[in-house]
Formats: sequence, structure tokens, C-alpha cells
Amino acid sequence: MIEDKNQQRTQLSDLGEFGLIDHLTKNFKISHKSTVKSIGDDAAVLDFKNKKIVVTTDLLVEGVHFDLSYMPLKHLGYKAAIVNLSDVYAMNAKATQITVSIAVSNRFPLEALEDLYAGIETAAKIYNIDVVGGDTTSSTTGLLISVTAIGEIESNNEVYRDGAKSNDLLVVTGDLGAAYMGLQVLEREKEVYKVNPNSQPDLEGYSYIIERQLKPEARKDIIKLLKDLEVKPSSMIDISDGLSSEIMHLCKQSKVGCDLYEEKIPLDPQVISTCEEFNIDSTTVALNGGEDYELLFTISQDDYSKIKANPNFTVIGYMKEEQAGIHLVTRADTKIPIKAQGWKNFNA
Amino acid sequence: MIEDKNQQRTQLSDLGEFGLIDHLTKNFKISHKSTVKSIGDDAAVLDFKNKKIVVTTDLLVEGVHFDLSYMPLKHLGYKAAIVNLSDVYAMNAKATQITVSIAVSNRFPLEALEDLYAGIETAAKIYNIDVVGGDTTSSTTGLLISVTAIGEIESNNEVYRDGAKSNDLLVVTGDLGAAYMGLQVLEREKEVYKVNPNSQPDLEGYSYIIERQLKPEARKDIIKLLKDLEVKPSSMIDISDGLSSEIMHLCKQSKVGCDLYEEKIPLDPQVISTCEEFNIDSTTVALNGGEDYELLFTISQDDYSKIKANPNFTVIGYMKEEQAGIHLVTRADTKIPIKAQGWKNFNA
Repeated sequence: MIEDKNQQRTQLSDLGEFGLIDHLTKNFKISHKSTVKSIGDDAAVLDFKNKKIVVTTDLLVEGVHFDLSYMPLKHLGYKAAIVNLSDVYAMNAKATQITVSIAVSNRFPLEALEDLYAGIETAAKIYNIDVVGGDTTSSTTGLLISVTAIGEIESNNEVYRDGAKSNDLLVVTGDLGAAYMGLQVLEREKEVYKVNPNSQPDLEGYSYIIERQLKPEARKDIIKLLKDLEVKPSSMIDISDGLSSEIMHLCKQSKVGCDLYEEKIPLDPQVISTCEEFNIDSTTVALNGGEDYELLFTISQDDYSKIKANPNFTVIGYMKEEQAGIHLVTRADTKIPIKAQGWKNFNA
Repeated sequence: MIEDKNQQRTQLSDLGEFGLIDHLTKNFKISHKSTVKSIGDDAAVLDFKNKKIVVTTDLLVEGVHFDLSYMPLKHLGYKAAIVNLSDVYAMNAKATQITVSIAVSNRFPLEALEDLYAGIETAAKIYNIDVVGGDTTSSTTGLLISVTAIGEIESNNEVYRDGAKSNDLLVVTGDLGAAYMGLQVLEREKEVYKVNPNSQPDLEGYSYIIERQLKPEARKDIIKLLKDLEVKPSSMIDISDGLSSEIMHLCKQSKVGCDLYEEKIPLDPQVISTCEEFNIDSTTVALNGGEDYELLFTISQDDYSKIKANPNFTVIGYMKEEQAGIHLVTRADTKIPIKAQGWKNFNA
């Protein structure tokens, strides 16, 4: 919301495609033995010896997944990496490489793309991944980022969505709904700015929920923690679309039902207070908000003692027979069926 | 250029994202042992045992890489797969899996995406690859396709861009410039159609060059042929941007120069006649046209006897010391330096 009219601008057409890729990726270091050949050939070459590899891909579209009026490009680059790494961790795997493709219109100068790549580089450093390839092209309108993440997994360590059993405990990491409420605050400030461009955004008291929206983290730490605790989940998924959607994926693919306890859903105090301020139900936000990038998994009740004392984990329900259905057990002890949300992106 | 006003239209929002992915990918079969887990989890799981894997990714943007007024969606799906497989083959590798992500605006009904995926499925069958993942999202404007291809390679079989040596022969497969001239014909017919929407496109006599533009093939056959002939190229690249650009990549990365002989550049008779009709120099088209998806490689002169009788290969020049530079030797025996072209996509 703050525009610097004097910023340096280098036209992308001055560099050419190959000059641009070279320029943007010149600082990227390789740190994995499995990366045999990186950026600069027709393809990257990876050598995983006897390990299995996992591959996942996500597309982020301007105007659908992000709004550059409050999303700094550096954060966007970071987030584009994170959302894919989160999918790798949700397989109980170690993330090792990513490829990054961008389509970008002429309105972006080189300096904007440098910011974007600086965010990708930061994520690569923090999460210890190699950037091994990509594609850079022009678009007729906005910015679009496609990231593919690759990871490795020891045999028999992979955790799918289809392994949950009746009576397994449903566990979530961290807390839910903060990214969505952060977005609500940012959208509100954008509207204020539109009316009065001289206003300064008032974001005090919202730092946690705004950071969860603008600079989310993927739960690499949880994969290590589960290993240390000797817990192998029976099923696992990351929370990108919202708790209810992810529970439905686990239930559908595992052919089980579920009781989710409203009172157990972990919420940060800032989420609760912001929900009150916006007059939104916090349970609805946790169920449908999305973009939390926490991990949702099921474990055998035998493993409960291993996780119960750990502040990273909250048991929020348990799995049932398929015919029991999928329900939210409310604080008033009534049962409400959890249903699929429409696909909001296509209803716009 | 032919619009069917009565075609069936199913709104994408009726299906939701997950319903859409399920629907579009339900016919996809798995045929590789290395595909352990495919579409439907956070990531695909692949197991390549002791082989190295190659990974490559490409982004195709409506209005930049394709024009739906003459590119049928089925062909577009096919081509999106092909351009990535071509990069895998250019590593001397075997393509095994792809992921496909699309961003699509509301103006596309389900039936359009079915056509797109039918093209992807056809490519997957013909080239024997598994579709193992992807992402489907909305876009604010046009259609965008991001494909990541994965392949495997026996140790020591990989061929990079940086292995060319002085005195190596420069070899190209097939013929060049046809895809570009096919595009010129299609663009001309589009202009005619704009002026008179009742006109029927006149494409007779251009079938080869139009097919090269709308339904290109990747040279999987060449990788097998080179193996059968016991030829391992010293360097290799696929021709996506045009011969001159690819030669410069090989020379720059291998630190060598090159003499390219104009009279040796393989051209189809239809390219020559269409160039005459459009009053364009055919050598310029071959050098800068792009989208041929032929393979360009260098071999030791010792291997010449193995390839010389084969109609798939044309020796078009030889590599020199780096300080000799990169030149086109014309039919008139003058030497013209080969220079980088601007990045036309960003000059629009």
C-alpha cells in the first residue's frame, strides 16, 4: 500500500529469457548430494539411490491466490515454496529440491522479480532445499507462479491419506484459522486505503495472524519430531483448504467416518479476538479458512502416550466406521454433519 | 475458427476442485513400476531404485504460447506434454511421469477441459508416461498450463549441454522451420476469418507444416536409435527456441565455437515453398523459428560412420575452439556471426 515512485526499474526485455534466469538464480547454492545437475540444462538430474522420491506441484495465480497490493513479492516467493514443501512433509518425507516457473507481465520490472526470487532463496535456505530448474515466460496479464517440489523418503516411512482406521485419534499441529483472519484484516485495510490513500495501515495487534497469512511456515519440524517420538501416523494431509475439507479427504480415502470436537479445535487468542471484532464464528473460520499449512494426521490410540504431553499436538477427534459419517460435535453437544464447501475460486 | 453454438456446457463450479480433478483424470492408467503413488495424495511417490531421475518443467500461457482461435484444446494438451518430454529426451533419458497443473477462467466449460485432458491422455499413451499429479485452479483471464516431466536415466548415460568438444560434428534430427511456417499460415487464415467470418480456412497444401505447429512430436525414437547405434552424444539440447539459440547454448556451456553450414540445414519442401510464398528467408526461419522439438547434438568424429547413412540425422556443422566464435557459413561461402535474438515475448 506504499508506493515508491523513485524505485529503480530495469525492463525485463533488456535481459532476455536466459539472461533473466541466470540473473535470478545466480546466488542459489546446491546442498544435496542427490542434486547431480541443476539449472541450466534441458532438465535437472537427481540421484536418490535407494530412496523413494515424492513429487508435488502447485500453481499460485495473481488475483486468485494472492493480491500484490498487500502481499510483498518477497513474501510471495517464500509462500510459493512453503505451500509445496508442506505437501512433501504431509507425505512424511524430507523435501530436497524445487523447480520454480513464473509467468509475468511487462508491468513487472526486474527488481520485482529479484524480490520474488529473494523470497524463494530464503525459503530454500531455511528449509534446506535446492532450486534445480524452472521456466520464465511472459503473461498477458498478471503474475503466476508454478512450483514443483521433490522430496525423498525411506522405504515404509511414507504416509498416505488412505490409512486411517476406525478408533484412530485425529491430531492437528499448531493452531487454525489465523491465516484466514489475517487476510480479513489485510482486506479491510485495503478498503480503507482505497478511500484514503494517505492513511497508514493499522495492523497493530494483528501481527500473528498477518504473519500467518503473508509468511506461513511448513511443518518440517513436525516430521522430525514424529520420527524422534517414534510415531508413524496412519494417515496425514496438510491443511491448505481448511480443516473440514482435509478431514473429508482423509475420511473419503480411508473409508472411515469421524467425530470432530469443536471445543478441542486449537485457536490462537488473536484469532478469537479478531473473530469477535469481525463478528465471524471462530469455528467456521477454523473449519473453512484454509492456508494454515499445519499437518492433520491420525494415529493409533496405542501411540497416544507418545504425543499427549507435546504442545505441538492437539487431539481434536477420532475416526469411526464409515457409515457413522463425518460430524462436528459442538460445544452444546449436538452433532452437525461436515459437508463439502463449494469451490469458491470458481464461483467468483 | 468454427464455433458450435449448441455444444454442451457444464460449469466448472458445479464440480468443485476435487470433483474436477477426479473427473479429468479418472481414465489415466499407471504403467510404470516406478509410480508407487499417483494422483490423489499430497504428492506422488516414485521409486527409481538405482537409476538417476531427470526433472523438467514448462509453462504455456494463452496469448503468448498458444492462440485458442486455431489451436484445438486436445492438440494443446498433447503439445503441453510433448514440449516437456522433449526436454527429458534431450538429456538422453527415458520419460516416465508428468504432473499437469492448469489455471483456467470461468469462460471454459468442463467439456473444454475434457478435450485438453484427452490430448494429455493421448500423449501419455503414445509416449508411455504416467500422469501422477497436478493442480487445478481458476485464473482471472485465460488458460495456463504448467507441466513437469520426470524421467529416468542409467548411470553414465546422461548427456548435458556442456560436453561438446572442438572438432565434434554438429547433428540435427528431422527438419527445421516447419512449425514456424505453420504458425504463419494459421495467423494468415485467422486474419481472413476476422474480415469474413463465413470464409472456410484454406489449409490445403500446408498439412505438414500445420501439423508440426499444432501437433508436434518429441523424438523419443531418436533416444532409442542412438542407443541401438551405440552413439552417445557429447552434448545435446532440444530445439524449442530455434537453431541459432540452441547452438549458442551448446557453445556457451561447452566453451567451444561453431561453424554452421547454411546449405546443410534440413528443410522440408513445404517449408521452402511456403517461405517463398510469404517472402521470408528459409534460413532465417530455421535459425529463429523455434518449436521444432527436434534434437540437436554433437558427436565425436569417430562416431560419424555410425550415423552417416541414417535419414534421421543431418550433419550441419562442426565445433571449433571457443575463440573462433559462432558463425553461419552461407551458400556464398561468407561467414556471418550468429547472435542472440531478443526475447520476443517480452518485447510485445
